[in-house]
Amino acid sequence: MKGVSTPLLLDPDRLFPADPATRAIAGGLYESVAGLPILSPHGHVAPSLLMDDEPFSDPAELFITHDHYVTRLLHSAGVDLARLGVGRSAPGDPRQTWRTLAEHWQLLAGTASGYWLTHELATLFDLRDEPSAETADASYDTISARLADPAYRPRALFERFGIEVLATTDDPMDDLSVHAALGADPSFTGRVLPTFRPDAYLDPTATDFIARVLRLTEWHGTAADDFAGYLAALEARRAHFIAHGAVSADHGVSEPYTVDLGDDEAGALYRRAVAGNLDAAGAREFTGNMLLRMAGMSVRDGLVMTIHPGVHRNHSSAVFDRLGPDTGHDIPLTTTYTGNLRPLLQRHGLDPGLHLVLFSVDETAYSREIAPLAGFYPSVFIGAPWWFLDAPDAVLRFRAAVTETAGFSRGSGFIDDTRAFLSIPARHDMARRLDSAFLARLVREGRIPQKTAERIIVELVDILPRRVFKL
Amino acid sequence: MKGVSTPLLLDPDRLFPADPATRAIAGGLYESVAGLPILSPHGHVAPSLLMDDEPFSDPAELFITHDHYVTRLLHSAGVDLARLGVGRSAPGDPRQTWRTLAEHWQLLAGTASGYWLTHELATLFDLRDEPSAETADASYDTISARLADPAYRPRALFERFGIEVLATTDDPMDDLSVHAALGADPSFTGRVLPTFRPDAYLDPTATDFIARVLRLTEWHGTAADDFAGYLAALEARRAHFIAHGAVSADHGVSEPYTVDLGDDEAGALYRRAVAGNLDAAGAREFTGNMLLRMAGMSVRDGLVMTIHPGVHRNHSSAVFDRLGPDTGHDIPLTTTYTGNLRPLLQRHGLDPGLHLVLFSVDETAYSREIAPLAGFYPSVFIGAPWWFLDAPDAVLRFRAAVTETAGFSRGSGFIDDTRAFLSIPARHDMARRLDSAFLARLVREGRIPQKTAERIIVELVDILPRRVFKL
Amino acid sequence: MKGVSTPLLLDPDRLFPADPATRAIAGGLYESVAGLPILSPHGHVAPSLLMDDEPFSDPAELFITHDHYVTRLLHSAGVDLARLGVGRSAPGDPRQTWRTLAEHWQLLAGTASGYWLTHELATLFDLRDEPSAETADASYDTISARLADPAYRPRALFERFGIEVLATTDDPMDDLSVHAALGADPSFTGRVLPTFRPDAYLDPTATDFIARVLRLTEWHGTAADDFAGYLAALEARRAHFIAHGAVSADHGVSEPYTVDLGDDEAGALYRRAVAGNLDAAGAREFTGNMLLRMAGMSVRDGLVMTIHPGVHRNHSSAVFDRLGPDTGHDIPLTTTYTGNLRPLLQRHGLDPGLHLVLFSVDETAYSREIAPLAGFYPSVFIGAPWWFLDAPDAVLRFRAAVTETAGFSRGSGFIDDTRAFLSIPARHDMARRLDSAFLARLVREGRIPQKTAERIIVELVDILPRRVFKL
Repeated sequence: MKGVSTPLLLDPDRLFPADPATRAIAGGLYESVAGLPILSPHGHVAPSLLMDDEPFSDPAELFITHDHYVTRLLHSAGVDLARLGVGRSAPGDPRQTWRTLAEHWQLLAGTASGYWLTHELATLFDLRDEPSAETADASYDTISARLADPAYRPRALFERFGIEVLATTDDPMDDLSVHAALGADPSFTGRVLPTFRPDAYLDPTATDFIARVLRLTEWHGTAADDFAGYLAALEARRAHFIAHGAVSADHGVSEPYTVDLGDDEAGALYRRAVAGNLDAAGAREFTGNMLLRMAGMSVRDGLVMTIHPGVHRNHSSAVFDRLGPDTGHDIPLTTTYTGNLRPLLQRHGLDPGLHLVLFSVDETAYSREIAPLAGFYPSVFIGAPWWFLDAPDAVLRFRAAVTETAGFSRGSGFIDDTRAFLSIPARHDMARRLDSAFLARLVREGRIPQKTAERIIVELVDILPRRVFKL
Repeated sequence: MKGVSTPLLLDPDRLFPADPATRAIAGGLYESVAGLPILSPHGHVAPSLLMDDEPFSDPAELFITHDHYVTRLLHSAGVDLARLGVGRSAPGDPRQTWRTLAEHWQLLAGTASGYWLTHELATLFDLRDEPSAETADASYDTISARLADPAYRPRALFERFGIEVLATTDDPMDDLSVHAALGADPSFTGRVLPTFRPDAYLDPTATDFIARVLRLTEWHGTAADDFAGYLAALEARRAHFIAHGAVSADHGVSEPYTVDLGDDEAGALYRRAVAGNLDAAGAREFTGNMLLRMAGMSVRDGLVMTIHPGVHRNHSSAVFDRLGPDTGHDIPLTTTYTGNLRPLLQRHGLDPGLHLVLFSVDETAYSREIAPLAGFYPSVFIGAPWWFLDAPDAVLRFRAAVTETAGFSRGSGFIDDTRAFLSIPARHDMARRLDSAFLARLVREGRIPQKTAERIIVELVDILPRRVFKL
Repeated sequence: MKGVSTPLLLDPDRLFPADPATRAIAGGLYESVAGLPILSPHGHVAPSLLMDDEPFSDPAELFITHDHYVTRLLHSAGVDLARLGVGRSAPGDPRQTWRTLAEHWQLLAGTASGYWLTHELATLFDLRDEPSAETADASYDTISARLADPAYRPRALFERFGIEVLATTDDPMDDLSVHAALGADPSFTGRVLPTFRPDAYLDPTATDFIARVLRLTEWHGTAADDFAGYLAALEARRAHFIAHGAVSADHGVSEPYTVDLGDDEAGALYRRAVAGNLDAAGAREFTGNMLLRMAGMSVRDGLVMTIHPGVHRNHSSAVFDRLGPDTGHDIPLTTTYTGNLRPLLQRHGLDPGLHLVLFSVDETAYSREIAPLAGFYPSVFIGAPWWFLDAPDAVLRFRAAVTETAGFSRGSGFIDDTRAFLSIPARHDMARRLDSAFLARLVREGRIPQKTAERIIVELVDILPRRVFKL
């Protein structure tokens, strides 16, 4: 049937349950929250996007090049990532890149990315046909024309999307001048908050660990091998972030291992790390102890602590060496929390000031460990399904896995975690539809009253993110 | 909407599938077993409750203080466990404790506890509104008034609930005089059976292991360091339990590790354990060998062997030190069975006398290990979903995970495992509804005939528990 | 109700979703592929079955004796495997064996085997009643009479089943003369392909490893302790297989561990293995290195590489010693891929010539590891649900677990993996129904257009197996 285009599908009842009675309940719940503002307390949009407010350059830049969910699938089908301008590769011809996506559009059927892109193309650019070889040039031109319209600049879209809060993710040594400038700009009224992401300063096996620590301690005016100075420097950077509006610190560790060490023992590991002669086992101890100490800092300064563990970063060395990180080959690992986090929770789990949000890409941990922990410790919250699990069926599995143990009140609210600015409303809309679908099923099965579902859907969308992230 | 009460929901079709045709099938299956007697071959109700037959003191005692499913969620919301009278804390003011639950009622929405409590409040106490701050005092008074009624004493409820068999869980050195007195009491016709739970006598790392073993061997008249005497003493206590009606021995190990050791090697470990100088690795070997030996005793004396593994007990030392065990912070662990149980099954797996029931709080083991083991070894049975997994969605996941490999005949039947006497009918009713729902789906999908479903629902509710637990 | 037979159920809408609207979509999709030819690129039917084309001897031989899915369940119910003629036991009385199955028919309710057998008995033998003690003799006679009909000989059934390609599984030293004879026989037009299965030649802990390697190297004319000769011999056997039509090499390792070793190091391990003095740790390294080297051979010679890991073979030594392998007690293990396969993928994962199909009996790996790997590496494909997971609910869980990350194009297509020739159409029909059901749900939920579903169902049934297995 080549040459016959497929209409782009945007079913108004999409993601609602098949059973008509349940579907009607879901639709009603969704309607009640569809228009609420977007709260995005964790993500990867660059603040400069909103500061500069430049037009997006082209459809490839917008939808493909920076979205490793999309480029990885094209790569699996044999497309060279460099042809798409991914990572360190030279920018490709954007029209050709767009055409490559269009030709491979069918690969995305059934994926989360396919769902989000469809939403974006239909609602923002009024495309009527699915991308395909035949329609690629026309859709490229349609999108490009829209991008030249001032209504498609980042700030205009920020407002159109109804974003109230957007958190970025930032290096601890970032001066946050862009955030400061945005905050001081009277023409921009959104809240754009930095997030403290110190992994590379806490893990001796991270690239450039020593150089980073040197820069940190030099800034702070303490000797590189002074452990107390290093800790104080980290606290000072956190204070700098808080002064610029930060509400959370994010930790992307490979395992959520924690260990409680005294200052002497931890200091000795630190000095060996800074001297470059700490072995892998020692590095694990040091990193595990620093994760625990970061929880202590959170107790003191109030930053919400989020942990995103369990990913083997840069699985293909060949692709990493050629194109750099975040190029689509971070692969999940089995992850356990009960034992790994116990030292941290022994020390700080009952502290009323701590908010610890646990994410997972190993969904077996939801019912087995994360919900049981969050259903007891007042400090622990269940992070929304993340990365590969941020997709319709996975979200419903998540809800079914955690709710029976921990209810709804122990969740983080939805987290979009995205680099793709245009996907933010698609993702939040998806989450609202799925939560409506889940609640509708509970109503239909006589497990919660309709009125309770009406209360909870608002709690999930609006109240929990504010409470958990102290917005 | 504060101040407007929500009617307490007790949908007659609750937990049935959404699709109307499937729902009708489920309803019919459920009707056929809704009135069958309750068989509860594993649980934690104290036998003195039925011996003394005293009125329940108050709604807090009845619904909150001893139910760690409920108190843990309140704790996660910041409620001090001591305010609820949990564990070793002083009893609180029951009206205030009830009010605390009522104020936090919404936390329970979607949880198994919320479902059970709703069932109990609606069917036993005819409450019409959900607990809330506004209704707390009135509902407290309503429930209290009922508790003064002789119809709400334990024995009357035992009869009203239709309980035919109720197993308790008991220390091996318990003299079982309460069970004996109950059995001899002509005014009580129910069967209340003790269960042999020897963990603390088998694991050198358990609190008071040495003191317990001393008491055991002293009772038996053998030297504390005589391994053969220790084994004989355990067998004698099992015989004592059997003489008082016990049908099973229950094992709550942290991992289902087993190892086959000769008497010399095991005896040497034992002597070091009793002398207090066995290290952790040795203790693991000893405990793993004793688990295997307990299977051997089961082959000889016929006690069904149940294993409840995979829980990190007392995760928060601070709460444990203050309030004691069973205070809501036992957290599941990853658990594997294929390798761990192989030595036990090598020795006894084909023995016709052995009934080994495997429970799990790591639901990944259901399809991967437990169903494949039970689908081959005549001795192995699949334990019903336990603890955090004893909830509507989890039960349906369980059925879907095990049935395709092992059918229905290899299951244990439902196990309520509860300390909360009033929740027994709610839990069994839930299980009957869910099994009806699961079977109805298979019928609707053309996978089993209606007639087969009608046979299986009776098998699940009535026949399997009798067969597996030798009732 | 003993004595009243149950009609054998073969619902034309079986396995379709309950919701009528979704069911209608599924039915339409299924209709479009129900009649397509069967492609079976991995299985265990003996080629002599088709070469000899003898009548099947009796119903027991046909449905029971060689089907360890069936005999294991009978064994769990206390039936002695030897009474069924399993493995090395003497052939039993076939009528009695059939009667044993008939008497235990209810054990199969809800299992995949029960579903397949029902399909076979209804469609091939026109049985109207479920097997039971009462109907056993009559159904035995009905089936036996049909087996005498030339239309029930293997070749006639091969044609009736619409099998286009059937792969067998073969020892590397097999001369493949049966395959050659079949290929040369003008009266048989089907494609029957050998599959290279070298496990016992790669794993020093395998039974007869040394004897096998001696035979291999002697055939090749190189010294037994010459590592280069051993590698060349393996490559020569692969070439022999390719010359006889093989398209894939299959690897049934206990864990998918790989390690990249130089020739010197690997050769040293090899020489110790052949000398019989390589320890378990060394054997693991050698086997892990050989798995990686087999991927290299696949890059060079084009054989698709399939890995079936994660099974503890022959769990019961008593049954193995008495009856041999494949007697129903192979039990799954936890299995991880991300780290284990990394060395292999570092070396060959980006090679366009490699097709690496990953199977799992640990379904937790689907969303966590296999789909993320296949959604990036062009060489990695997602194996269809295998063994215990080749069943209706498990297949739908599989689709839900992998599709949102990797779409549909990264799958292997359905693999029946069966020893039971008559079950081939039942299994493929089941897969087609389930894929139709899954796609219909996506359509009903507005996630893919109807037209896309119509394309994908053909892709799954017909296009992917040809592409992935290079048919």
